[in-house]
Amino acid sequence: MSPAAERLRYILGEDDDTPTPTLFTEMDTLQHDGDEMEWKESARWVKFEEKVEEGGERWSKPHVSTLTLHSLFELRTCIQTGSVLLDLEGYSLPQIVDDIVDRQVADGLIGPELREKVSFVLLRKHRHQHKKPIHLSLADMGKSNNSPTSRSPHRFPSSASGLHHSTEDLRAKSGSLGRLHPAQSRSMNDISDKPSTDQMKNKFMKKIPRDAEASNVLIGEVDFLDKPFVAFVRLAQATTLGGLTEVPVPTRFLFVLLGPHGKGKSYNEIGRAIATLMVDDLFSDVAYKARDRDDLIAGIDEFLDEVIVLPPGEWDPKIRIEPPKKVPSADMRKSVLNLNELGQVNGTGTAGGPGGGEDEEMPTPHELGEELQFTGRFCGGLWLDIKRKVPWILSDFSQGFHIQSISAVLFIYLGCITNAITFGGLLGDATDNYQGVMESFLGTALAGTVFCLLGGQPLIILSSTGPILIFEKLLYEFCKSNTIDYMELRLWIGLHSCLQCLILVATDASYIIKYITRFTEEGFSSLISFIFISDAIKKMVGSFKYYPINRVFKPDYVTTYRCECIAPDQAAAMAFNVSVPLADDNMTDLVSGSGYNLTGLDWSQLSKKECVKYGGALLGNACKYVPDLALISFILFFGTYSMTVSLKKFKTSRYFPTKLRKLISDFSIFMSIMTFVGLDMLVGLDTPKLIVPTEFQPTRPDRGWVVMPFGKCPWWVYVASAVPALLVTILIFMDQQISAVIVNRKENKLKKGCGYHLDLFWVGILMAVCSFLGLPWYVAATVISIAHIDSLKMESESSAPGEQPQFLGVREQRLTGILVFVLTGVSIFLAPVLQYIPMPVLYGVFLYMGVASLAGIQFWERIKLYLMPAKHQPDFSFLRHVPLRRVHLFTLVQIICLAVLWTLKSTVAAIIFPVMILGLMVVRKMMDLMFSQHDLAWLDDILPEKDKKKEKDGKKKKDNKRTKAAEPESDEEPKSPLPPPVKIPMDTIDLPSAPDPSVSPPTQPPVSHCE
Amino acid sequence: MSPAAERLRYILGEDDDTPTPTLFTEMDTLQHDGDEMEWKESARWVKFEEKVEEGGERWSKPHVSTLTLHSLFELRTCIQTGSVLLDLEGYSLPQIVDDIVDRQVADGLIGPELREKVSFVLLRKHRHQHKKPIHLSLADMGKSNNSPTSRSPHRFPSSASGLHHSTEDLRAKSGSLGRLHPAQSRSMNDISDKPSTDQMKNKFMKKIPRDAEASNVLIGEVDFLDKPFVAFVRLAQATTLGGLTEVPVPTRFLFVLLGPHGKGKSYNEIGRAIATLMVDDLFSDVAYKARDRDDLIAGIDEFLDEVIVLPPGEWDPKIRIEPPKKVPSADMRKSVLNLNELGQVNGTGTAGGPGGGEDEEMPTPHELGEELQFTGRFCGGLWLDIKRKVPWILSDFSQGFHIQSISAVLFIYLGCITNAITFGGLLGDATDNYQGVMESFLGTALAGTVFCLLGGQPLIILSSTGPILIFEKLLYEFCKSNTIDYMELRLWIGLHSCLQCLILVATDASYIIKYITRFTEEGFSSLISFIFISDAIKKMVGSFKYYPINRVFKPDYVTTYRCECIAPDQAAAMAFNVSVPLADDNMTDLVSGSGYNLTGLDWSQLSKKECVKYGGALLGNACKYVPDLALISFILFFGTYSMTVSLKKFKTSRYFPTKLRKLISDFSIFMSIMTFVGLDMLVGLDTPKLIVPTEFQPTRPDRGWVVMPFGKCPWWVYVASAVPALLVTILIFMDQQISAVIVNRKENKLKKGCGYHLDLFWVGILMAVCSFLGLPWYVAATVISIAHIDSLKMESESSAPGEQPQFLGVREQRLTGILVFVLTGVSIFLAPVLQYIPMPVLYGVFLYMGVASLAGIQFWERIKLYLMPAKHQPDFSFLRHVPLRRVHLFTLVQIICLAVLWTLKSTVAAIIFPVMILGLMVVRKMMDLMFSQHDLAWLDDILPEKDKKKEKDGKKKKDNKRTKAAEPESDEEPKSPLPPPVKIPMDTIDLPSAPDPSVSPPTQPPVSHCE
Repeated sequence: MSPAAERLRYILGEDDDTPTPTLFTEMDTLQHDGDEMEWKESARWVKFEEKVEEGGERWSKPHVSTLTLHSLFELRTCIQTGSVLLDLEGYSLPQIVDDIVDRQVADGLIGPELREKVSFVLLRKHRHQHKKPIHLSLADMGKSNNSPTSRSPHRFPSSASGLHHSTEDLRAKSGSLGRLHPAQSRSMNDISDKPSTDQMKNKFMKKIPRDAEASNVLIGEVDFLDKPFVAFVRLAQATTLGGLTEVPVPTRFLFVLLGPHGKGKSYNEIGRAIATLMVDDLFSDVAYKARDRDDLIAGIDEFLDEVIVLPPGEWDPKIRIEPPKKVPSADMRKSVLNLNELGQVNGTGTAGGPGGGEDEEMPTPHELGEELQFTGRFCGGLWLDIKRKVPWILSDFSQGFHIQSISAVLFIYLGCITNAITFGGLLGDATDNYQGVMESFLGTALAGTVFCLLGGQPLIILSSTGPILIFEKLLYEFCKSNTIDYMELRLWIGLHSCLQCLILVATDASYIIKYITRFTEEGFSSLISFIFISDAIKKMVGSFKYYPINRVFKPDYVTTYRCECIAPDQAAAMAFNVSVPLADDNMTDLVSGSGYNLTGLDWSQLSKKECVKYGGALLGNACKYVPDLALISFILFFGTYSMTVSLKKFKTSRYFPTKLRKLISDFSIFMSIMTFVGLDMLVGLDTPKLIVPTEFQPTRPDRGWVVMPFGKCPWWVYVASAVPALLVTILIFMDQQISAVIVNRKENKLKKGCGYHLDLFWVGILMAVCSFLGLPWYVAATVISIAHIDSLKMESESSAPGEQPQFLGVREQRLTGILVFVLTGVSIFLAPVLQYIPMPVLYGVFLYMGVASLAGIQFWERIKLYLMPAKHQPDFSFLRHVPLRRVHLFTLVQIICLAVLWTLKSTVAAIIFPVMILGLMVVRKMMDLMFSQHDLAWLDDILPEKDKKKEKDGKKKKDNKRTKAAEPESDEEPKSPLPPPVKIPMDTIDLPSAPDPSVSPPTQPPVSHCE
Repeated sequence: MSPAAERLRYILGEDDDTPTPTLFTEMDTLQHDGDEMEWKESARWVKFEEKVEEGGERWSKPHVSTLTLHSLFELRTCIQTGSVLLDLEGYSLPQIVDDIVDRQVADGLIGPELREKVSFVLLRKHRHQHKKPIHLSLADMGKSNNSPTSRSPHRFPSSASGLHHSTEDLRAKSGSLGRLHPAQSRSMNDISDKPSTDQMKNKFMKKIPRDAEASNVLIGEVDFLDKPFVAFVRLAQATTLGGLTEVPVPTRFLFVLLGPHGKGKSYNEIGRAIATLMVDDLFSDVAYKARDRDDLIAGIDEFLDEVIVLPPGEWDPKIRIEPPKKVPSADMRKSVLNLNELGQVNGTGTAGGPGGGEDEEMPTPHELGEELQFTGRFCGGLWLDIKRKVPWILSDFSQGFHIQSISAVLFIYLGCITNAITFGGLLGDATDNYQGVMESFLGTALAGTVFCLLGGQPLIILSSTGPILIFEKLLYEFCKSNTIDYMELRLWIGLHSCLQCLILVATDASYIIKYITRFTEEGFSSLISFIFISDAIKKMVGSFKYYPINRVFKPDYVTTYRCECIAPDQAAAMAFNVSVPLADDNMTDLVSGSGYNLTGLDWSQLSKKECVKYGGALLGNACKYVPDLALISFILFFGTYSMTVSLKKFKTSRYFPTKLRKLISDFSIFMSIMTFVGLDMLVGLDTPKLIVPTEFQPTRPDRGWVVMPFGKCPWWVYVASAVPALLVTILIFMDQQISAVIVNRKENKLKKGCGYHLDLFWVGILMAVCSFLGLPWYVAATVISIAHIDSLKMESESSAPGEQPQFLGVREQRLTGILVFVLTGVSIFLAPVLQYIPMPVLYGVFLYMGVASLAGIQFWERIKLYLMPAKHQPDFSFLRHVPLRRVHLFTLVQIICLAVLWTLKSTVAAIIFPVMILGLMVVRKMMDLMFSQHDLAWLDDILPEKDKKKEKDGKKKKDNKRTKAAEPESDEEPKSPLPPPVKIPMDTIDLPSAPDPSVSPPTQPPVSHCE
């Protein structure tokens, strides 16, 4: 172990419990302007470097500090040879400067005659780079014409006059401060004791953590020194030293480097080096805890050892490197020091990383947490779920109060009512209006509100789903052909299903979903996304059929296009020429039965519908065409979709401040809808609009609000209904729980835990309630739930400039969900507003939802890989570890599974669709035979019972590698007291590589200015 | 000066004339698989590192090698302590290995007993990472199931059996090669003498320069050594050593590092370090020329001194850094060594770069080259232009044969005919068909062909332009009201204008365009782009007026919509109810004059036009509406535009191989046009189509093909026409020359020089010819010319993996231009094909042209800055040097100028439009008062006469800075014998910073394994 690391371990290990404050570092350089001198801020560091663009008078973008090795070695020498004052009692800058100079004189580093000159220089005023208010900038516009010097607007009248007085004869020889008698100058100290208003007002303050302390780096060239004057000061207490720092942050460290003229650039680099060191997590710890000069040197050595080196021929030093998305944490770097304790080589643990892909961690195994453990007790899971959820009740509401919630509510609300209307319409068709749009709205509102209020995962949105629709359709047909009362049979199926769900809850049956790996999850959610996309497109194509375009229309022959209503008697006569058939039979029945006075009608004044109603015939070549509507529908549909996509992307554009961009991105769907609703109103065409029921009554007049359980069916129906109920139960169970697994994905960083048992409990109860009320059944809707989560994602407001905002998690609360469903419920009263929304706009929203939920699915990324040549493929970690052909094979299997499911879904077999998901899980199980556990760990997750096997596998591989290594070294291997719970033991293989402790110094180290 | 730099200067300075070959470096590591050993390729370098992804069985993306400082120091120690064999005579690997081992034994580095073991290890077979053919991959699909070892498919039967035989008892203790007697093994040498077929077939070869030589790095752990075995070998002659290298490139260098077990990772890093060094331009020179070990050490030291260091806390070493767009050239780095000669500090010249933004070069001043020098001789400029152009005649045609030319021809052709039709139509309207579409086509073809064949800058495309159109319009109106013969007057104006142009040519008047700076250029080209965009949008909006949509149409009331033709007598009776007025007067005249038999007509069967023609009235609420056409036009227009934009962008996407992507991008416009022509045909609606004249005759029957100069006008007209001709001359001169300046922009890297005088000469001659033939006048069209250039841009096929393709220049030739215009000429015969193209598609192309020519204009980038918060602005170099408010002010002035020009353009004043460009130049001159020359140099160019002033300015600043520096140091400043012609002297300021030559070695350098 290197002496440096040993030293560090000693000082850092002492009391690790008090975290050191974050350091803000400012570097000021000495500027000579004629006779005057001032300190000018030239760079600052919170975590990354920001430089003052001299000409541009602005801050550069935050970037990674690229240093030269040279400057680091020079800095090392500076610390070795200069004055190091640790824990200096300092209350004001003049006193601190005095102490520094005293020490230098005492150490014989400078002569006493320079004492005043150095003090004078160090006490010059500091000018900071501030953002100028706009009126000052405008006033400045006309000025600075030709001379670049006129750009430094602040002169100091007092100091200037003093200098002018005493140095009048010297002005010809500019900057010859050497012969100046500073004692005569009135302006010995330019620095005020209190922070100026500029400092206090500086908005940059909010980028600096609250507990931060400052370290000031002062770099200057003077003419009276012949060798560098170096001092490193740590104050005993952080003190605000007047105008020293840009922001009112107390100063803890001070690094001063004054030197003779001509080496400014080199000094500058040394200043950047110490500044970069000061913001380094490890070195700043060292600086806080250093006992003496040697500790600091050890800190620099440790830093040097971890440094990353770029070859000069492969990188242009002028490029400012953008801050990375993620940097290694300080803790990890500190832990390396602790590993050293175990006899490991210093540095190579982390710094050896580049190119050492082998030692990358294996993906963490599929973890579902304790929520899905089989308790073995009656209702054990449910009880745990409730216990887990109760503590969050308050925050479930309080966290909902955020502007983001509004956009989420609007977005999901529109999705929900579109869904309710679509499924309501389809259900109405399928069941002869026993369940129509009205029931759909009411049911959605009821079930959704209850679930969001009491469910285990309130982020899940309940909705009607396709399989349920098909089940209802088949059931109604069965009832009609066997003359069984549909509503009563349905009630009993619902009750049985509810009971079955409760049994599943009581027996903790949800634990089996831990066999649902990424493979199944992604297959399911991709399928649902495809259904959304294809439905949206189908609807759109449908409108081309519904509003056929007259493709042979010639504008010039407009005179020949017409559509006339012909009275029935005439129609009969002209039967050979009728282009539109008579209305369907029952309509004719209706007409003939109602006994209108057909002869008294002015047939030519009738509308199309009326004409058909009264038995007239439509004659003419314009009858079957509807102009413009199909095309405008397409424009609205496609426009809504593309505008939403563009606005979502706008978040990462360069324009406008971050907050505005985020707002635009959050409200993108709302803005697109409003835009295209506006466009639709502007064009004024009769596009199909959203129509919500306005009166609170069942769609079918002959049914009431409550279904009676007995009376209409024979007794055996009550029992036999348990069989179809079983199908419904499987359907609901799978649909619900897979959606829940997707919502609870690790990537979403949910903090309040999941509640699979509680969810299923409420879905069951709601089944029964809905059956009694004759409302549709509801279950978790994958795509809308994902959209819900996406619209509630939180990102950190990044603190240090250049730091990437981190995804923090999701605003987990019940408020948005409840609001969505309450709004759905009152939509009946919102009809006057909602009727302006054209359906194509909503189909556009559907399309967006489908496409957006595909994004970020690894399966989808892997499909894209098929189209990319290997060299253009993104650097996915699974590609680093699994051969491409196996990745492709895995994807292919998934595609085939999906194709099979898609085909099934399109047929009557859709009813066993949820069972097919079980099939997916079986396929996944079989893939264990085709793929190695290693590959599957990267592409998917390991199945639970494979975990142990996996571990064995890992050990085997380890042994294998050991064999390769040909020397066991087992005695040297670190034996951690407890096996790491997540990491696969394979990780430890690369660590045991003890270095040769022999040290060989490079014979020709870089030249140094210090000493 | 450091000793290392001095040494290097000596060896590199010796004979700099023979360039050293490029090095390809391959690193192989020793793999133990049970008892067997083999060398496995683990990384390679052409310029950047490519690593073998162990698990992924693929090459990583090329990336910058990130090294650890540690490994570099260790490497240094290795070279210091190991064997260095320079200029070894080697013809085969076994012999070379023998030599290495002999030397090691001789030096006492290894005992003689290890000789055979080391040789055995070094002669193991090498396995390279090859892309597997697809059938092998498929065959491999089912295999590798659980065991990771099954992934190394190549076993060596011979070697294996040999080992099995001799070590049967040792197999339990795997890999115990120490007790093996290699002499017994038949497989002492696994390496064949000749390169294998795999090697020969390797497609990677084409990425390696022809003259390349290989350097092989061999890294391995063995159990029989107790300290590292290091050898660095340079062969006297590069030799192909069988299967050693992945590709059949002769090996020149060999680096071997074998060491005891347990430190593999560290060895690996050392191997990467030497490999990175070997591909470093400077070090590879040193390696080729090194006389002894110390030269190599000096090379490493110099490398270390230039190295760029990233702090560990700000960068994650696992991130693979993408190769930068540009790396510092080796020459520049070598020149630093020469600067050292002048007493400069080593390294800081370049490596001190990061953060030292001040020493960035000033932008090079506005350079127009000798083409625009005022010769002072009669036709001096024209003569020089011809002399400059003659040598290129052959290549002007030969370079045209390229697939890219096809796409360029198609693109520009479509632009040209659209332009010809648009302007033809407008001219026809303006001149009562004296010049119509036919003349426009013919004139375009004639003028364009002649210009492209003989002009100075064949990349310029001639076309009708707006100002000329307005001039013709005014002229025709003047003639009509004063009953002067239009064609004859026009001929005389043309002749005068031609004469004036020739005078301008003879007097080298084009030299004044050197006052056209970026400001004027960008103002002009932005304006033209805006006109294109606004014209395209106007046309599109126009079609909504031309095909009005019936906005109150209700599908249900289709029966009430009709449009009937009513006979005139009936019409009179129903006058109160006529919705469309009768046709205009002359039509009615025509009808009444022609004496049709109106009574015999079936009025209801007439078309709209016929109805109006025969004096009928159109009655009905459908008459004034045209369904669908406006909307489908919009879809075609917008679709063409967006598809073109998307396909253009496709070039930078990840999908499909580079070549296919480039093809798609090149043909994006063609593909978009084809797609939307196809869509239009599919829909089959009667959209407005491109109509080209099909018969070769003048548009107006009463004019011939040649205009006679005398006869119709009084004599004074022939003289007075010189006055309007002057206006035309200014117009043509400005329009032509600014377009030429834009085309000849430095950024386009044109190599064949420009020909401003020659261009103007031909434009003048063509004026006269066109006037005689009664064809429109032609002048350079900015937007189409830019489009022409853009479609002919060449990029280098990047050689080393990871290197960015460089923009090489433009395919400068005459072929595409000539083809475009010949095609335009024969378009009259292409009418049957062209008539399928809907006009909205062409408007989409227009829009694209306008938008595309805005891209890359700095003015446009600066406008965007208004919308960006400072911290999100891109890192433009002018932003680093000019304060934002001044950038904004500059942009604002440009915007105001443009707004004024735009307003002028929209009024009758458009005729003095070219004069306004002169106004722009005056504004630019006045800006010298508002902005400093420093700011203008960054934002614009310096005006010619300011150049000297600028230099003075620079000197003043320099003095200023000197004053700041307070110490002249003038004796130390490098006095270059000749002042640099391009660089402003300011640059030299930062150089004089001689370092303190004292050296202080760091006391505790990193731990090393070597020694």
